[in-house]
Amino acid sequence: MRKDAFSLPEGMIYLDGNSLGPLPKAVGPRLQEMIADEWGEMLITGWNRAGWMEQPARVGNMVARIVGAPEGSVVMGDTLSIKVFQALAAALKMRPERRVILSDNGNFPSDLYMAEGLVGLLEQGYELRTKSPEDVAEAITEDVAVVMLTQVDYRSGRLHDMQAITEKAHAAGAVMLWDLAHSAGALPVDLAGCKCEFAVGCTYKYLNGGPGAPGFIYVRPDLADEAEPALSGWLGHRQPFEFDLNYTPGKGIERMRVGTPPVIALTALEAAMELWTDVDMQALRRASIALQEQFIEEVERDVPQLTLASPRDPQERGSQVSFRFEEGYAAMQALIARGVIGDFRAPDIMRFGFTPLYIASADVSAAVRILREVMGQRLWDDEKYRIRARVT
Amino acid sequence: MRKDAFSLPEGMIYLDGNSLGPLPKAVGPRLQEMIADEWGEMLITGWNRAGWMEQPARVGNMVARIVGAPEGSVVMGDTLSIKVFQALAAALKMRPERRVILSDNGNFPSDLYMAEGLVGLLEQGYELRTKSPEDVAEAITEDVAVVMLTQVDYRSGRLHDMQAITEKAHAAGAVMLWDLAHSAGALPVDLAGCKCEFAVGCTYKYLNGGPGAPGFIYVRPDLADEAEPALSGWLGHRQPFEFDLNYTPGKGIERMRVGTPPVIALTALEAAMELWTDVDMQALRRASIALQEQFIEEVERDVPQLTLASPRDPQERGSQVSFRFEEGYAAMQALIARGVIGDFRAPDIMRFGFTPLYIASADVSAAVRILREVMGQRLWDDEKYRIRARVT
Repeated sequence: MRKDAFSLPEGMIYLDGNSLGPLPKAVGPRLQEMIADEWGEMLITGWNRAGWMEQPARVGNMVARIVGAPEGSVVMGDTLSIKVFQALAAALKMRPERRVILSDNGNFPSDLYMAEGLVGLLEQGYELRTKSPEDVAEAITEDVAVVMLTQVDYRSGRLHDMQAITEKAHAAGAVMLWDLAHSAGALPVDLAGCKCEFAVGCTYKYLNGGPGAPGFIYVRPDLADEAEPALSGWLGHRQPFEFDLNYTPGKGIERMRVGTPPVIALTALEAAMELWTDVDMQALRRASIALQEQFIEEVERDVPQLTLASPRDPQERGSQVSFRFEEGYAAMQALIARGVIGDFRAPDIMRFGFTPLYIASADVSAAVRILREVMGQRLWDDEKYRIRARVT
Repeated sequence: MRKDAFSLPEGMIYLDGNSLGPLPKAVGPRLQEMIADEWGEMLITGWNRAGWMEQPARVGNMVARIVGAPEGSVVMGDTLSIKVFQALAAALKMRPERRVILSDNGNFPSDLYMAEGLVGLLEQGYELRTKSPEDVAEAITEDVAVVMLTQVDYRSGRLHDMQAITEKAHAAGAVMLWDLAHSAGALPVDLAGCKCEFAVGCTYKYLNGGPGAPGFIYVRPDLADEAEPALSGWLGHRQPFEFDLNYTPGKGIERMRVGTPPVIALTALEAAMELWTDVDMQALRRASIALQEQFIEEVERDVPQLTLASPRDPQERGSQVSFRFEEGYAAMQALIARGVIGDFRAPDIMRFGFTPLYIASADVSAAVRILREVMGQRLWDDEKYRIRARVT
């Protein structure tokens, strides 16, 4: 519990850290310092003097520790969608004789869209094949070049078994790419142990890096010097400041850098990541499960209108709990208007994230009390049109 | 002249705004407000309440005015390198029967690298063909799908004639892509008038958006609904919050959005762009040329060791002046150590940017006096090893 490290509005119960994490108090002062003392005073020399040039790797190492990856195997930059594209393109080059990207329909749509864009660009018979989450492991046939899955389903919180699916992928000769958007900072991840070739993720959810904070990419260290960067920008070049006319990929994970790094955004994220230095991910997971179990128990006892949409076994969930309710959109707006912040995913999912760094058991009980009031009195009937106009 | 709007270190003469613009005073307070009052207080609801979701288009319109593009034709995001890739991929789809990307060896290497990466991904006989800047217009043959050029050469400042080359490209049936990295905010650009299909650029140079500030992309409005986005991220989808499993491109320029927008970086940029509201680009250009002409005249009079590397005709230069000097790297470090900030580009280019918003005639004379001292006394001899270790 590190609630004192966050700036949370008085009276708000924030159960949406799975979408956008709240503001760590360290971010504002650090950003102000970077703006005034680094950009303002050092100007161009900040690239070296303030360590901006190494920041993508430095912050990458902070993320690496959270996801069980070794030092030097993660680099920051761009967005999660771009990192998906990078990883997919490199994965396909590793299996030139295969033509299938396999995913599931529980994946976050942007991952599927990026794959669709890549397939449309390549032509040559490439295909994005999508199965249901339950069937995807069995669908890893020997024509699959790369399996791309998000560990935690963004709607239900359902958890894929990274280890087991990666083994299946490898047994079929496929490359494995994991999207850790809802995993990094939510639960222990063992990238090194799972042996997947690629992983990607974002940092604005559980890692609290701020709206639109940079993405990350992991490449398994033994492959990092052979992964081909299709997005071959100058900062992935072996010697960017030689200004060669031809691209030579940099060493290891550095080649997954693309353009000039977003220093201001990375500085906010770096400050946010300081919080994680002494977080025990196993203890965080136990606390997260305790909060989720309490929430499910109290909602099922007090708010019978809602139907659990997440797996009942906590070992099969990430760090969120979702309930189905037909008028969920309007009900969620009424709940938000009363200071309990969750979110809604079409068609009928009310989604609640549990983040033990700043959410305690008492918050869960308070949230359920307000939810019960909203649901029992159908409080959204009065206001739904007003609210709908404001929040889409 | 808006020097009072910038936070510049006392005693520094900053002639490197062509690489990283200095800090506009408005940025720090605005960023602090966004962090505390928007992220901190609104959290997830900031996407709507604080207008984060529309920010890429809103800031895009601010950039559009600077580059002569109509409202709604520019969108912000990612980096310049990514925007180059997007534009090239869409351009190639517009000429499916052609296989050549034509550029010149005066282009910024990252543009060439991104093209190389795309060609390597596509295979199918695609080719990046590179000519010298003088010969590129004549090399636009009927097998060229897209001509990709940077208007202002990053080393010499040499200016391409956008209008004439675009006409040649169109006469040969090719698509035209301009990189405006060293043009936007440096000189008047008339994108609408030049009729090129695509343009891209960055915002951390003359537009002062901060280190690694987001890139931009322009698509000619009559083509914006048919350009195919290869980097088809969810925020380019027509209805991102429907979470469809299939990608349907958004309307117009919106489809060139990719992932979640970098709100913190865009907020810094938006504050920096306020400065441009009342800037007359023609007057800025006249002031820039006057500063450049003064610099060349005084350097050639007082510092005979240096040889002009930029075109002598100011109409053929952007907003920078470059000189050749064999020991230019070390000499530039000695100059920087004395508060005159320019930069160096291999093998022997000493580069100076002229930005009338915060550089005046007196600064130019003072810079030349210090340059004369450094060159006359070979001041870098004493210190070059020390400096080389610090600044690469």
